[in-house]
Amino acid sequence: MPVYKAPVDDVMFLLNDVFPIERHNNLPGFADASPETVEAILTEGAKLCEEVFAPLNLPGDQEGCVRNADGSVTTPKGFKAAYDAYVAGGWMGLSMPEAFGGQGLPTTLNVILQEFQSSANLALAMYAGLTQGAIAALLQHGSEDVKQTYVPKMVAGTWTGTMNLTESHCGTDLGLLKTKAVPNGDGSYAISGTKIFISSGEHDFAENIIHLVLARIEGAPQGTKGISLFVVPKFSVSNGVPGERNGVSCGSIEHKMGIHGNATCVINYDGAQGWLIGEENRGLNAMFVMMNEARLAVGVQGLAQSEVAYQNAVAYAKERLQGRALTGPAFPDKPADPIIVHPDVRRTLLSIKAFNEAARALLVWTALKSDVAHRSSDAAERQAAEDHMGLMTPVAKGVLTDLGFDNAVKAQQMFGGHGYIEESGMSQFVRDARIAMIYEGANGIQAMDLVGRKLGKDGGRAMMAFFNEVAAFCQQNADDEGMIAFTAPLQKGLADLQQATMWFMQNAMAKPDNAGAGATDYMHLFGLVAMGYMWGRMARAAIDTKARGEGDEAAMDAKLLTGRFYMERLMPDTASRLACITTGADVTMAMPMEAF
Amino acid sequence: MPVYKAPVDDVMFLLNDVFPIERHNNLPGFADASPETVEAILTEGAKLCEEVFAPLNLPGDQEGCVRNADGSVTTPKGFKAAYDAYVAGGWMGLSMPEAFGGQGLPTTLNVILQEFQSSANLALAMYAGLTQGAIAALLQHGSEDVKQTYVPKMVAGTWTGTMNLTESHCGTDLGLLKTKAVPNGDGSYAISGTKIFISSGEHDFAENIIHLVLARIEGAPQGTKGISLFVVPKFSVSNGVPGERNGVSCGSIEHKMGIHGNATCVINYDGAQGWLIGEENRGLNAMFVMMNEARLAVGVQGLAQSEVAYQNAVAYAKERLQGRALTGPAFPDKPADPIIVHPDVRRTLLSIKAFNEAARALLVWTALKSDVAHRSSDAAERQAAEDHMGLMTPVAKGVLTDLGFDNAVKAQQMFGGHGYIEESGMSQFVRDARIAMIYEGANGIQAMDLVGRKLGKDGGRAMMAFFNEVAAFCQQNADDEGMIAFTAPLQKGLADLQQATMWFMQNAMAKPDNAGAGATDYMHLFGLVAMGYMWGRMARAAIDTKARGEGDEAAMDAKLLTGRFYMERLMPDTASRLACITTGADVTMAMPMEAF
Repeated sequence: MPVYKAPVDDVMFLLNDVFPIERHNNLPGFADASPETVEAILTEGAKLCEEVFAPLNLPGDQEGCVRNADGSVTTPKGFKAAYDAYVAGGWMGLSMPEAFGGQGLPTTLNVILQEFQSSANLALAMYAGLTQGAIAALLQHGSEDVKQTYVPKMVAGTWTGTMNLTESHCGTDLGLLKTKAVPNGDGSYAISGTKIFISSGEHDFAENIIHLVLARIEGAPQGTKGISLFVVPKFSVSNGVPGERNGVSCGSIEHKMGIHGNATCVINYDGAQGWLIGEENRGLNAMFVMMNEARLAVGVQGLAQSEVAYQNAVAYAKERLQGRALTGPAFPDKPADPIIVHPDVRRTLLSIKAFNEAARALLVWTALKSDVAHRSSDAAERQAAEDHMGLMTPVAKGVLTDLGFDNAVKAQQMFGGHGYIEESGMSQFVRDARIAMIYEGANGIQAMDLVGRKLGKDGGRAMMAFFNEVAAFCQQNADDEGMIAFTAPLQKGLADLQQATMWFMQNAMAKPDNAGAGATDYMHLFGLVAMGYMWGRMARAAIDTKARGEGDEAAMDAKLLTGRFYMERLMPDTASRLACITTGADVTMAMPMEAF
Repeated sequence: MPVYKAPVDDVMFLLNDVFPIERHNNLPGFADASPETVEAILTEGAKLCEEVFAPLNLPGDQEGCVRNADGSVTTPKGFKAAYDAYVAGGWMGLSMPEAFGGQGLPTTLNVILQEFQSSANLALAMYAGLTQGAIAALLQHGSEDVKQTYVPKMVAGTWTGTMNLTESHCGTDLGLLKTKAVPNGDGSYAISGTKIFISSGEHDFAENIIHLVLARIEGAPQGTKGISLFVVPKFSVSNGVPGERNGVSCGSIEHKMGIHGNATCVINYDGAQGWLIGEENRGLNAMFVMMNEARLAVGVQGLAQSEVAYQNAVAYAKERLQGRALTGPAFPDKPADPIIVHPDVRRTLLSIKAFNEAARALLVWTALKSDVAHRSSDAAERQAAEDHMGLMTPVAKGVLTDLGFDNAVKAQQMFGGHGYIEESGMSQFVRDARIAMIYEGANGIQAMDLVGRKLGKDGGRAMMAFFNEVAAFCQQNADDEGMIAFTAPLQKGLADLQQATMWFMQNAMAKPDNAGAGATDYMHLFGLVAMGYMWGRMARAAIDTKARGEGDEAAMDAKLLTGRFYMERLMPDTASRLACITTGADVTMAMPMEAF
């Protein structure tokens, strides 16, 4: 049975020493989040994930969800009870407004808990994750009436939520969507069409399911400018109570590569009654506003699978006896040495660890910016935080899920043939991690979002702010002997990133294909530098903590070694990413379509 | 339903223009293999794969193998008939000696057909593949009696074969194995123990299954020097006819991530009667001699999954309408452009194509060396060919399966959410490709084999021959304007590889961990250069073919563009591989075990 232990200590290092959460005490909700409270909350959340969520992960994968003849869906054994425990613990509303029954605590805490939940049981965590996403959309764009009708029940977890965007012929290009909305004359609409890939679309957890649905109002313009957002409850609500069944049903459950415990549904709308959210024909805008948070949450899932796969690979590598250390037997009393003595095994494990800790830092850093963006009373601070979010979201989503998947594969490899057997759980981590590269905008789309939209936005303000911050950090630490192993490679990486950015400026305006052909490499180059900066910050904090004689010295030493590994073994890739980008699009575009 | 078309044209370009098979006409079996005959054979083999093997791939994955209560195993519907068609076509014996009922044709042809078969249906192809491996072992090490008893039936496909190495506590480190062999006094042995992960271990295809089993003769030395190889038939053979059931049975079928259509069995030996193959206690040597071919065949599987996944991704990318080209609508009459207009999609597809064609060249080149090694009457030529095989086998196995898997993932990504649905077949390609990185020696072991064993063997003779050949090629083409796009990056890559090799010489003798920590990067660096050399050779051949006014000009132009893509986009990675290698093992080895 796979193991999982939530990395509470590593998170506390980030919140206490790297990005001190105390600095944000002026923000609403943060005053209640003292380091002690935060640690208590995370410890409690960790317990739920380790003891309730994690043991259901492998059985849930094997059992999957079943659609019954009447269209109802049965989730794997134990999932409902686990969801009930989650809801009973108040976790759904942790960062939700108190006015709607939440606890108003920082979103950052929820993001951290999303990591724990997604490591422990991604398929299960998605039911709550989608609900939180739907709540955010309703809070931002719903009328007062809509908010009062749906949000308190969703915050309480009594009702859950979904997001309905994709149709079989369109996902990325939502302008093509066909689902129709016809005004009923009473302020509501009749929604008709078929949506696919609807995560948590139908299940046995909740009294009601609140679907957010993109559809085109009859007579609306073609393309993306004619799409509106609707709320469509599974059961019509009157006086706050679910009543009649609405015209929405689960047509089938998809047979997927992974996340079997989540019911990914085809949802049929047959004149279902729905209500407009936000303005007519502005549905995509309403969706995009909440996209940053949703994409960040998917980035979290990439890290989460990498982390849990890593923990299991480490446990196996310490236990599995095979061969002898190259320098002679390390455990001569045993029939062979544990495979963790082998340099190639250590290199593999460290490459995952070096990613995990940097990715976690990047997410915590960005989640704090999200809190600032939503809660600060200072307009300039809000804007800077929003800039950061906009820039870093495609990086976090694209890079963390690409590498999270790669790392799950690497961790599986440590098991040899045993990792290919489903009972090891390693195959599931790989299969589950795979979806995060695809949904909420496939990673190629993230790369295009970064290069085509975010980079040049507001005259490149967000990008320049990031470059300046990294450069300033390197300069501030230039005279510190202990920091050279971090700042020198970081500076080199930053230079590669700046050169690539410059190359786009000079070559992509006239020829946009140059940006398109380099977008994915650029996104990964950006990710390497952003994570490299995180390592710089963590190294600084570790050195300072040690100097103060505080903290766990062994943990700080391990932190510094892991950071050095990142700089030596992962950072050099910036050079080849730059080389690829600057070759441009000519060869890529010259190939005739029929020659592929 | 996934599509597959065997790349016969690409193979014929390799055999006619790049590594002219005619040059080997002096070797036994090659005189019968005129270009016309070869093309006819491959076309016929392609037909079997496309029309019989491929349609069973997805259903075979979904149905899987079933172990019945009596220990028999039922394979997926249609598999037995497809195997019968394979056998009836004489494909099992294509390259087997005529004395045993084979056709004696070049092994190269069989390797090429292995690609087609593994693309079309890897799980099914493995039944024949394992049998061919077992035949090779029996031919090389079996007594005359053993050969006469088993080989003709296996060449005819009436009986199949397996390889039994792994036990639950050991795979890489076979010195730990526990399966016992006790002399019966009549020249045979009683074999007892449990083997796991036995591919094609039990099934409903054949009259008899011939197991090759590693076991320790009672009283033999501990470790690898006490292991012997045995042949253990499922049914005892007397007068060439299967008789009584032997003490060997399938205990269970593993639940695997992929290759569901192949029965991967736990095989129990309960005093089963077996006969020694080769010398006592020299079983590992007997295994290792045939390891090159077996590992090459797994490298083929890596390419095979990459190729079929690519073909399906191309078909989808030409058909799926989503968004518009960055330069304006390419198909204004359609509601959107096919996604193949997007640079990031093209870049992805080309990166797979550039690998596939180079990998295929590397395999054909190496397979031809295998034929030379086994068939040439010239000792020096044989030795050079064996050197090449020894050096290139871990590269082909390790690099081609790592990248083959990565490419299957990339191809799946082109499908967006649809690729995550099992019905698309893309998930299966990924799941099936995954095993090739693990079996026949996990890829980390291949890297150690290359760095620790092959590199320094015979004073580095094989390595020096390869370096010299590539350098000479670059020099010969130095003055050719049309070749600069290929030779310049190749020379740079070779220089990186030579520098890495030099670094090992200087740093790994005294400190072997430096070799271990750099082994995987070195293997991939080697692979990049080897495939880069293949692109040099293919570009040379394409330019010459065009200059002669022969061949398909559009195909030659596509070849040259694909090669340029390789040089621009894949080759630059040699620099970061070198950078990683030369950081050494210090940080990797410094991390205390408990800090992982």
